[in-house]
Amino acid sequence: MEHQVRDYVHGYETGESARLEDQASALASLLHADTVYPPGSRILEVGCGVGAQTVRLARSSPGIDLTAIDISEASLAAAEARARAAGLDSVRFVAADIFDLPFARASFDHIFVCFVLEHLAQPLAALRRLRPLLREGGTITVVEGDHGTACLHPESDAAHASIGALVALQRAAGGDPNIGRRLYPLLMEAGFAATEVSPRMVHADGGRPELSDLFTRRTFAAMIAGVREPAIEAGLVEAERFDAGIRALHRAAKPDGTFCYTFFKAVAVSSAT
Amino acid sequence: MEHQVRDYVHGYETGESARLEDQASALASLLHADTVYPPGSRILEVGCGVGAQTVRLARSSPGIDLTAIDISEASLAAAEARARAAGLDSVRFVAADIFDLPFARASFDHIFVCFVLEHLAQPLAALRRLRPLLREGGTITVVEGDHGTACLHPESDAAHASIGALVALQRAAGGDPNIGRRLYPLLMEAGFAATEVSPRMVHADGGRPELSDLFTRRTFAAMIAGVREPAIEAGLVEAERFDAGIRALHRAAKPDGTFCYTFFKAVAVSSAT
Repeated sequence: MEHQVRDYVHGYETGESARLEDQASALASLLHADTVYPPGSRILEVGCGVGAQTVRLARSSPGIDLTAIDISEASLAAAEARARAAGLDSVRFVAADIFDLPFARASFDHIFVCFVLEHLAQPLAALRRLRPLLREGGTITVVEGDHGTACLHPESDAAHASIGALVALQRAAGGDPNIGRRLYPLLMEAGFAATEVSPRMVHADGGRPELSDLFTRRTFAAMIAGVREPAIEAGLVEAERFDAGIRALHRAAKPDGTFCYTFFKAVAVSSAT
Repeated sequence: MEHQVRDYVHGYETGESARLEDQASALASLLHADTVYPPGSRILEVGCGVGAQTVRLARSSPGIDLTAIDISEASLAAAEARARAAGLDSVRFVAADIFDLPFARASFDHIFVCFVLEHLAQPLAALRRLRPLLREGGTITVVEGDHGTACLHPESDAAHASIGALVALQRAAGGDPNIGRRLYPLLMEAGFAATEVSPRMVHADGGRPELSDLFTRRTFAAMIAGVREPAIEAGLVEAERFDAGIRALHRAAKPDGTFCYTFFKAVAVSSAT
């Protein structure tokens, strides 16, 4: 979802863009400020996409030995260009499938996975593949959203119907956009130890108009609106109801509305394998 | 809801009771640790009930001049006994209706309202009555839950149907158990300034079995189970579905389940009236 935050930020007027960048960076802090690795650590970022987290990781933990993988060559090329533009030349980018990774056991001290498991049909199997890549005592950090935590004022059944349509579509494609709440059991079942999950709630109200604009309207509502055609075609929701749902999300972004959404961040330790 | 936490804690075996008391006190910290008033402050607690918060307020802010009101004489008597048992002799207990308060303008430096607005048909009018009682620059602290934030794993439509039945019953009685998300607009509309709302999420997973036991099972599921008869009688949900919902909540309290619930805490400042 954060890639979307970034995408929407791009291309706006300078003053507005600066305010939105502030909010995007506040959101990033909410999720990532406590992820800092010591210099020299061997870090694997799984599913780096176009590199938004890769750049952040490399900057917030100077001196790490960072390998970023993604299955898409196009995304990797974009991520590599982004890293180079940010002056980060030492990141290793590798095209790889999470289920067929070209790394030896215990190759990494820490693994970082952000907004990836939600897209996988086999998140448990993926975590099981990753675990042996960690040295004993190494950690895995997983950050995911959970659309079931979305709550708005004024309340709107239509909004929940529209959100539900996106959830159904993503599930039909094999993913689970409500995976945040499952991180603890998934990590434990995958054989990790000492899993700690901390929820991170975004709460946008009239006191934070830029956050309502960036997160409620341009990120969340826009993401739901993006599935309008397939949702209606699939018969998941009537066009009128879907549109009413989007209007309700925009309504919640007004000064007397509120919108909440929770991300889940898990840190788990690799035990003896 | 916290009164219920306390009620369920009472009467258990010593070892278990100690663990539950720890969790109850962890929950109380989550909500109240940052509410501390300077000695000499004139504090009004609105809707003190049987005094759980009253005792905590008096202890965490020694030397305050605390007045606790409730509309129920029976609750007040219980609160007074509880305060006396805790060695707190200086708290003033007053039977009063929030809409007909026996206090002059600017009588208080700070007002504290916890789990009260959810029961009122006119929460906005109540806040408007309270505002003139504060000196200029005084604060009001409001803590409320929001049942719409409940989310569980494994997911269960029946659980949401059971929760929805409680919400419908409480609304039919004039209240709103989903009021947490509305605190910001309510306080602003009531004329307060500089309102800051911070969500406080309880996240119970297999790593916190005592919390799952205390909060998911004995507090939340028990609270929902408490409306079984009226919910079924009112035709809000079929008996079978209701019971499946309760089972799903208990299921979420097992080691491989999770349960989340968010409380909202607002602090607002009284501006010139």
